Amino acid sequence: MHIEVVANIGEARSDDFLHKTVIVVDVIRATSTIITALINGCKAIVPVDTVLRAKELQQEGDLLGGERFCKKIPGFDFGNSPLEYTKEAVQGKRVILTTTNGTRGIQKALKADQVLAGSFLNSKACAAAAIAFKRDTVILCAGTQDVFSLEDGLCAGHILEELVLALGEKQVATNDFGLAMRGCYLQAQHTLYDTLLSSSNGKKMCKSGFLADIEACAKTNITEQVPILERDQMVLLQRSSRRPAF
Amino acid sequence: MHIEVVANIGEARSDDFLHKTVIVVDVIRATSTIITALINGCKAIVPVDTVLRAKELQQEGDLLGGERFCKKIPGFDFGNSPLEYTKEAVQGKRVILTTTNGTRGIQKALKADQVLAGSFLNSKACAAAAIAFKRDTVILCAGTQDVFSLEDGLCAGHILEELVLALGEKQVATNDFGLAMRGCYLQAQHTLYDTLLSSSNGKKMCKSGFLADIEACAKTNITEQVPILERDQMVLLQRSSRRPAF
Repeated sequence: MHIEVVANIGEARSDDFLHKTVIVVDVIRATSTIITALINGCKAIVPVDTVLRAKELQQEGDLLGGERFCKKIPGFDFGNSPLEYTKEAVQGKRVILTTTNGTRGIQKALKADQVLAGSFLNSKACAAAAIAFKRDTVILCAGTQDVFSLEDGLCAGHILEELVLALGEKQVATNDFGLAMRGCYLQAQHTLYDTLLSSSNGKKMCKSGFLADIEACAKTNITEQVPILERDQMVLLQRSSRRPAF
Repeated sequence: MHIEVVANIGEARSDDFLHKTVIVVDVIRATSTIITALINGCKAIVPVDTVLRAKELQQEGDLLGGERFCKKIPGFDFGNSPLEYTKEAVQGKRVILTTTNGTRGIQKALKADQVLAGSFLNSKACAAAAIAFKRDTVILCAGTQDVFSLEDGLCAGHILEELVLALGEKQVATNDFGLAMRGCYLQAQHTLYDTLLSSSNGKKMCKSGFLADIEACAKTNITEQVPILERDQMVLLQRSSRRPAF
């Protein structure tokens, strides 16, 4: 199985995703939030580029979520903190979500056969889903405004490690960047929270009072669920359509 | 002290190097070769972009070195293997060198205050030289045709680790990519040779019969010397102009 890890959205070329499975990773915080909302019963997440587009798509009963520069958008129901997307707030609802990097990553991956959302919360389940789809796979680290973000690279390394644990070392081929990210993850795996805190986004979150978000985003393999893009919205991948993740 | 690690030449912008020290790293093989040649008594290395330019610059007594697609250029005295640049072959001579990525990296860094050549052979000495120059520092991983190469990232991580050992953790600030490369180096430090072999260039070298080169390039801190660009040629940095490296 071949897994390519791409360092940031700026380095991604849409045509390279044809016939592939793409796992978009934006640990702090878009994909952590999408996963949290969906496992808390949110019906679907519609990722969009702009605030205007989010408002245009809103139908009766839909909620609006998103951030610009880490802050909630005026008039929106939620920001981009996974902790806001509780069962009480999202169950049975559809959320239109616009964030700076994560939703851009999903848009960029539209030509892929499958677009999944990955974070530390579901790395193992992402690995299992990628295996079940039997396609070459790209892990697209969202990064921050076309610059590499440590937490996304670490998560890519975590997904790679789960693939190696599932298939064996010899069955997983990756590019040099993937090898580096797996090494980096193995080095950091027992101090993940502290390592996230040392990253550029970790420091930013800390300054903005979102320390609890880092803690939430640093939890590993707490769910077997994987969000998948169906038409224009992310929903939970039906377990029947893949081999068991656990 | 601030150290920025840049993943490959394509990501580097010349203007970002103004007033800085740049350490160009092309472990397999240009900077390993430059260091080896200079410590073996070569008078100077002139890095140039093209084969034509190398031939134009050649004066009486000068030797020509370089490769295209890992192979020696027809009519040249040397390829790009550090093992060719022995004392017998290079002592007292000037070598005009053209390689695919390393010399491009040096050209790209010309706006910097100082341009140094780094590899595993002199990581500690590079760290000491960067400290002595008291400038913000960029480690420019040459990569391979604008794609990240594992061995260059690992060496950047090694130089960062040497900086941390010399100055203490709190005195060394780096970007997320630097944090990742340091983590990756720490994970791989005791299996460096095998890790280089697993990289894309390592495999290529192995296939082309250059296994001994990987072994030569994987040796760490075997010299206190650091090549520095003076006008258009690389020479050994005079030890008197910096604090002792060891």
